[in-house]
Amino acid sequence: MKFEFYNPTRLIFGAGRLPEIGKITKNYGRKALIVTGGGSVKRSGAFDRVVSSLLEEGVETVECAGIEPNPRITSVKRGAQIARKEDCDVVVALGGGSVMDAAKVIAAAALYDGDPWNMINHGQQNWLPPSKALPVITIPTLAATGSEMNRGAVISNSETKIKSFVLAECLYPKVALVDPELTLTVPKDQTAYGVCDIITHVTEGYFNNRANTPIQDRFAEGVIINAIEWGSKAVADGNDLEARTQVQWASIVALNGWVQAGAKGSSPVHMIEHALSAHHDIAHGAGLSIISPAWMRFTAKVYPGKFVQFAQRVFALKARNPEDTECALEGINRLEEYFRSIGCPTRLSELGIGDELFTQYARDSILVSHDENGKLPGRLPMSEKDIVEILKSAS
Amino acid sequence: MKFEFYNPTRLIFGAGRLPEIGKITKNYGRKALIVTGGGSVKRSGAFDRVVSSLLEEGVETVECAGIEPNPRITSVKRGAQIARKEDCDVVVALGGGSVMDAAKVIAAAALYDGDPWNMINHGQQNWLPPSKALPVITIPTLAATGSEMNRGAVISNSETKIKSFVLAECLYPKVALVDPELTLTVPKDQTAYGVCDIITHVTEGYFNNRANTPIQDRFAEGVIINAIEWGSKAVADGNDLEARTQVQWASIVALNGWVQAGAKGSSPVHMIEHALSAHHDIAHGAGLSIISPAWMRFTAKVYPGKFVQFAQRVFALKARNPEDTECALEGINRLEEYFRSIGCPTRLSELGIGDELFTQYARDSILVSHDENGKLPGRLPMSEKDIVEILKSAS
Repeated sequence: MKFEFYNPTRLIFGAGRLPEIGKITKNYGRKALIVTGGGSVKRSGAFDRVVSSLLEEGVETVECAGIEPNPRITSVKRGAQIARKEDCDVVVALGGGSVMDAAKVIAAAALYDGDPWNMINHGQQNWLPPSKALPVITIPTLAATGSEMNRGAVISNSETKIKSFVLAECLYPKVALVDPELTLTVPKDQTAYGVCDIITHVTEGYFNNRANTPIQDRFAEGVIINAIEWGSKAVADGNDLEARTQVQWASIVALNGWVQAGAKGSSPVHMIEHALSAHHDIAHGAGLSIISPAWMRFTAKVYPGKFVQFAQRVFALKARNPEDTECALEGINRLEEYFRSIGCPTRLSELGIGDELFTQYARDSILVSHDENGKLPGRLPMSEKDIVEILKSAS
Repeated sequence: MKFEFYNPTRLIFGAGRLPEIGKITKNYGRKALIVTGGGSVKRSGAFDRVVSSLLEEGVETVECAGIEPNPRITSVKRGAQIARKEDCDVVVALGGGSVMDAAKVIAAAALYDGDPWNMINHGQQNWLPPSKALPVITIPTLAATGSEMNRGAVISNSETKIKSFVLAECLYPKVALVDPELTLTVPKDQTAYGVCDIITHVTEGYFNNRANTPIQDRFAEGVIINAIEWGSKAVADGNDLEARTQVQWASIVALNGWVQAGAKGSSPVHMIEHALSAHHDIAHGAGLSIISPAWMRFTAKVYPGKFVQFAQRVFALKARNPEDTECALEGINRLEEYFRSIGCPTRLSELGIGDELFTQYARDSILVSHDENGKLPGRLPMSEKDIVEILKSAS
């Protein structure tokens, strides 16, 4: 194991803690840009509660509303313009992964000279992630992306049909204020997609890892076991606050680096899903629940070992030997069945996506992430042809 | 779950990384106080390698050598005096837990007005932990305390015979440079004591926790399972770099807050051990391996549930029901057997400690940490009489 780990975000976690936002924010600025999405935080009253807590502590507020799912670079530019014009000195993200991702990149774009799209990795030669950003405070209203406590963001370009990521230390939120009560109103389908997202964040690192990381393996399995158990409960009863709490905590540890530390991971499933949703604007978690099992089967046939461990420890299956492909595939079946059991799609046809653009998705994935042989990185690196094969098996 | 988590230490981990110390340190200062212990880092050559890397990057060095096991407040004062006199602006800790703990408190004492002993919790009315410190960089040479990546330190007062702790955000090291090669020369007994320390850090939070933390439980069990497995290997063959690496990584995650997040823990075993070693100057890990199983038996008889889960998941024992006391006790026996198998003492008599001062240790523990009823906090709070009973059972 050879790695670096750094995550300076202060996590404040617990049901009912939203009203602390004013006291928290005044440590970082006097005028907050509140970034929001399609309006659910208005309907739930969360927005008003945040504004009044901020005003109570003497923090002025300006809003950048209307961040779309799969947030676009045009929205980032709009938000940065507001932040500059209004002299905002802190950004508060109130929403799901899209809102938090947009808010982080807005915070960087407000201090960035040039086109903010250059900050996003989209296959350009000299990718330059940002080195400074306004302080960001995240308030997630959905348990899914883990963006509240990491340095990543995913942004789409609707002109070029590229959806891709940026990673930079300046994007770590100063504070993640996580109040699971805010997720009680999330509808069943979005709750389930969130659970798929959580599980896939963990499986990406777990299955693609080539390092010997027995402790991280246990951490990863622990998150998956609990995301499965509490995810079912949260989908069955959206008002189950304990289930919402455990799922929200799972979403944070699934992608704040704790589970990935030391693991030489890569994210091929995310890369393929990004290519898909750039063209079809589908829910990220829904795309993952389709691509993930297909990708697993492709890889497990060549490298069954880790999949056998997964089948044994997560689903308590018996293996005849450490490379038992049958057991490996049965573990993947169980995960796919789980995704279906909470109402997630597992075939592209369920989303009305045909095979017309398979080559295009494959090319887009590789454009954004490729090794020295021009393949999409993963435990088993994938050529364009391989990705098309995975997509076919998920049709 | 209601909690806050914050740990801004940058971890740089991997065999062979020691020579990076110069480049790392120059980001924080121009003159380093290097804090060391009894001389093993001189014999191993690690000290010279650190000094030459620092000088190469233009960082001047001053040494504060001779930090003793169970580091004393007098050594802290000496170190702070050197730092002030020599105008040091960064502190580099090169050693085990004692050295790192002393270095952290030296870094705070150098900027502290008044008696540094006031920073340490020793039962005083108005305990004021420090609010600022020189930047600290830790280089552990032993896998045990986890001090390299946390905000705690334990300091002893040989006059008052009190050994106690300080916790403060300013004590988080800026960087932990962790090179498992440095632990290859640690003798068998110290290696084993370190493994006990690692396991006890995790079991304290795990068994004393009253919150519902199923994910953290899995993390905790993962660390324990691996500390047991790789600990045996590291004790059997000190030159096994992979075992040294996994044990070192276990020592970090055992006490950097990842396993404890959300868990409402307390540390009664540590409190009792501190009281013991303040009087007898024994190795911390050796004290823990005696007190820990005795304390577990005391608590498991009243609250067997978590001990049953431990027995099932860590030692794969079968339970007749979730409160099966027999299974709980068998799990504790297995852990005690493990401690013995790696050469740790499990009875006070093995260290030549009699029952003369049992009441004194109990009083000292409660002096430093007590609830509103004057008991030592834990899953089952303990009176003076209870602690004496635990000590008797460990005689």
